[in-house]
Amino acid sequence: MSAERLRATYRLHCASSAAPRRAEALALEQSIEMPVEAVTDERVLREVVARVAELAPQSDGSVLAHVDLSLESIGNDAGQLLNMLFGNSSLLDDVELVDLRIPLALAQRFNGPALGVAGLRRLSGVQGRALTCAALKPIGSTVGDLAKLASTFAGAGIDFIKDDHGWADQSSAPFRERVPACQRAIAQASSGRPTPCLYAPSVSGHLDEMRAQIRFAVEHGVRAVLIAPMIVGVSNFNALRREFPELALLAHPALAGVRIRPSLLLGKLFRLFGADAVIFPNHGGRFSFSRDECQAIASNLRSPSHGLHPALPVAAGGMSVDRVPEQVAEYGLDVMLLIGGSLLMARERLAERSREFVAAAASTVAV
Amino acid sequence: MSAERLRATYRLHCASSAAPRRAEALALEQSIEMPVEAVTDERVLREVVARVAELAPQSDGSVLAHVDLSLESIGNDAGQLLNMLFGNSSLLDDVELVDLRIPLALAQRFNGPALGVAGLRRLSGVQGRALTCAALKPIGSTVGDLAKLASTFAGAGIDFIKDDHGWADQSSAPFRERVPACQRAIAQASSGRPTPCLYAPSVSGHLDEMRAQIRFAVEHGVRAVLIAPMIVGVSNFNALRREFPELALLAHPALAGVRIRPSLLLGKLFRLFGADAVIFPNHGGRFSFSRDECQAIASNLRSPSHGLHPALPVAAGGMSVDRVPEQVAEYGLDVMLLIGGSLLMARERLAERSREFVAAAASTVAV
Repeated sequence: MSAERLRATYRLHCASSAAPRRAEALALEQSIEMPVEAVTDERVLREVVARVAELAPQSDGSVLAHVDLSLESIGNDAGQLLNMLFGNSSLLDDVELVDLRIPLALAQRFNGPALGVAGLRRLSGVQGRALTCAALKPIGSTVGDLAKLASTFAGAGIDFIKDDHGWADQSSAPFRERVPACQRAIAQASSGRPTPCLYAPSVSGHLDEMRAQIRFAVEHGVRAVLIAPMIVGVSNFNALRREFPELALLAHPALAGVRIRPSLLLGKLFRLFGADAVIFPNHGGRFSFSRDECQAIASNLRSPSHGLHPALPVAAGGMSVDRVPEQVAEYGLDVMLLIGGSLLMARERLAERSREFVAAAASTVAV
Repeated sequence: MSAERLRATYRLHCASSAAPRRAEALALEQSIEMPVEAVTDERVLREVVARVAELAPQSDGSVLAHVDLSLESIGNDAGQLLNMLFGNSSLLDDVELVDLRIPLALAQRFNGPALGVAGLRRLSGVQGRALTCAALKPIGSTVGDLAKLASTFAGAGIDFIKDDHGWADQSSAPFRERVPACQRAIAQASSGRPTPCLYAPSVSGHLDEMRAQIRFAVEHGVRAVLIAPMIVGVSNFNALRREFPELALLAHPALAGVRIRPSLLLGKLFRLFGADAVIFPNHGGRFSFSRDECQAIASNLRSPSHGLHPALPVAAGGMSVDRVPEQVAEYGLDVMLLIGGSLLMARERLAERSREFVAAAASTVAV
């Protein structure tokens, strides 16, 4: 095999007897997109056509197909990687993309997190415990109310305060009013703390709009942002990673339900494209990811991978203070615990419950 | 109801008895993302929280939930529209987004196709018959082979010649070599034709890369491009639509398997965001869309909608010359027929089969 390849693993929902043919069709769909018989270029047949390396029938009746794709077909673009991995097959309901063995060449092309876990700990000054995160919500709030909320969280000792991912540039709290107001409120309320409090506003829109939002936010002292890579396009996400290497990127999983297994998309690919921290819906909350899937996401975010910085898992999606010890036991200390609505349910006791959250994270050590 | 709303329809896969609660949870997930009890701002409760308008149990056991979302929450961004429609819910396997009633305000924000069906007919000079399209493949080919292929298609009378969607900026045929060579070959081979032949190279990467590719292509005489909105991000797609109003945009469905019904995503939303033509996998080919779904895509692309230009459906995904009459009978004359691998299977008879394709389209009138 002369050309460099990367191995992708697909789950085929078909009978074992049908799997060889289905896997061959998949390999063509995700490479040359035409019958082999019609190819006249010998080099294409030898080096570009994807190859089925192995078929492994599973106990649940599905079949795992390991397929070797040519690295050449991907070029240097994150979107093109998704395109070649699963572009057309995403339209088919009998197949999922479940894993990818990332070769060194790919790690070097996309670089991964600029800051990673260590960088986030440096920024936030937090060592030896899990990080805490709260969210500014609901959308529709006024700038004044959001700043007040941010101030309460910061005063209680929360490490990261992020915009709800529903925040864009809406009229009730436009980006250019919301961000300076919240950043100022956070800076003031956290001025007496031993560690800083970091605000991560949500950036959205096309690439130029996101750049302008980031520059504006950075000018106002912001050092982290929230972005949904599947909405803004992974190529743009990766471009921002390169352009703003000192900025912490928190990736949000919105629109990530594309028949790519979360442990791969959120765990390996978001990290590969530059996420310093990745929010995922933890099991037992409002979403349906299993405990094993959440573990696999966290593991892929932090495991050694060609020298890529580890990224921080952010467990979210309906969490509460009482689950802090369980989450730290599961994920260890290199985790960010995000609690949203459950803090706000405390209403007039918001500051108190936020302090309880901070205390729980501070007192919980990994087992 | 004082605030403007848009009605989205979701299919819930749950028991009828569980549907009211599931639908309320969905309405919160896709708007304020927190419990109503925790909201202190009366205006948010009145104007921003999404509302379940109606639940309609279906004969297949699912329940359709009609939910009214606040237009305010969407702002002016295409990505934010997807985010508010289905961002978090895309991660859940018990719900699909199946339809959206597009209000006038949204049509005015996003503008739809700049050219549409009439513009594509003006560009191509084709009236009174279906348009034909062939694809430059496989990836991995040399520039010389691609130009020769393009020349053959153009000489045979094909209307549009598109890059395979797997083409990016790969080393075997870099964008800046491939595009001028193919455009030149097409211009030469079609110089004696009564109607022009249009080349649609595939543009990819982040927004700046796509702009640079488009400018380069336009300088070389190109008047159409192929883009996959779900890979590049719909906000970037919509931005290109505004920046290049004279360019024909062919939208490709790669990575569009996001639990949003194709008739909505490809049919309504791709058109809303500016696609002049939308490629979809026709039934009976390599993909699994039903005949009804394909009809619904074509219908949504072409139906009156607040003055948006109709967009051209492009039936693709394993089509062949013998299906031309059937496709025209199904879709009428306002369709583009895309045949890829099946033409190439003719090998040394490629020119002949391409001419048969052109002749079939020319002689087939709608019933």
